[in-house]
Amino acid sequence: MPSIFTKIIDGEIPSHKVAETEEFIAFLDVRPMKEGHILCVPKREVDYYFDLTDEEITGLTLFSKAVAKAIKEVIDCNRVAVGVLGLEVPHAHVHLVPVTAEGDFRFGKSVEVSAERMAEIRDAIAAAYSA
Amino acid sequence: MPSIFTKIIDGEIPSHKVAETEEFIAFLDVRPMKEGHILCVPKREVDYYFDLTDEEITGLTLFSKAVAKAIKEVIDCNRVAVGVLGLEVPHAHVHLVPVTAEGDFRFGKSVEVSAERMAEIRDAIAAAYSA
Repeated sequence: MPSIFTKIIDGEIPSHKVAETEEFIAFLDVRPMKEGHILCVPKREVDYYFDLTDEEITGLTLFSKAVAKAIKEVIDCNRVAVGVLGLEVPHAHVHLVPVTAEGDFRFGKSVEVSAERMAEIRDAIAAAYSA
Repeated sequence: MPSIFTKIIDGEIPSHKVAETEEFIAFLDVRPMKEGHILCVPKREVDYYFDLTDEEITGLTLFSKAVAKAIKEVIDCNRVAVGVLGLEVPHAHVHLVPVTAEGDFRFGKSVEVSAERMAEIRDAIAAAYSA
């Protein structure tokens, strides 16, 4: 069965997409730790992050770097933190979370963000990414 | 003033080193979230992870991948998680933490590991890395 991320990539499930290349996609996490929390995902469905090929994992790193730059331009923060856990969805993904304090980054924690604000953040980060 | 990691790289402060290349070093975190928690650090002192050059950040990713493989061979876990926060030490570093449950990975949390066990873990991961 395709992962929820593959369904997002295939457009079967809607998402707030901010960036896409031939190999990777980035969209807002629906349960953000902070406003601007984004997931960067390889389109090839691989469960464990470190099972990605060297080419895929370095490509994903550079894609994440470009997305993080866009996040930092849009969201007021000290820096963009990175997390890869992978215990819930069996499709490798990199969390990018704008943080100012240590407590801003915690797996399992989430903040409420309105639908309007999610759309606003998506548009701003997508614009900053493509700029 | 050199960062605490630069002092470790220069051998001024002792560490449980498990791997080293010309550009990167890996050693046990002295306040581990879990046994086998390792920091991968570029020798060039750069504060913000995403300020590393493309070559440095992809090199660090591949170095981390090799170290994660060694951790997984030695420590009983579901997978090796990745974290980059960077609010404490102004010298970019990648946390590699062997995890089985979400709660295993939490910035600020640490477990007690005896000096003997730290040395044992270092030796085992260093051996798995070089193998």
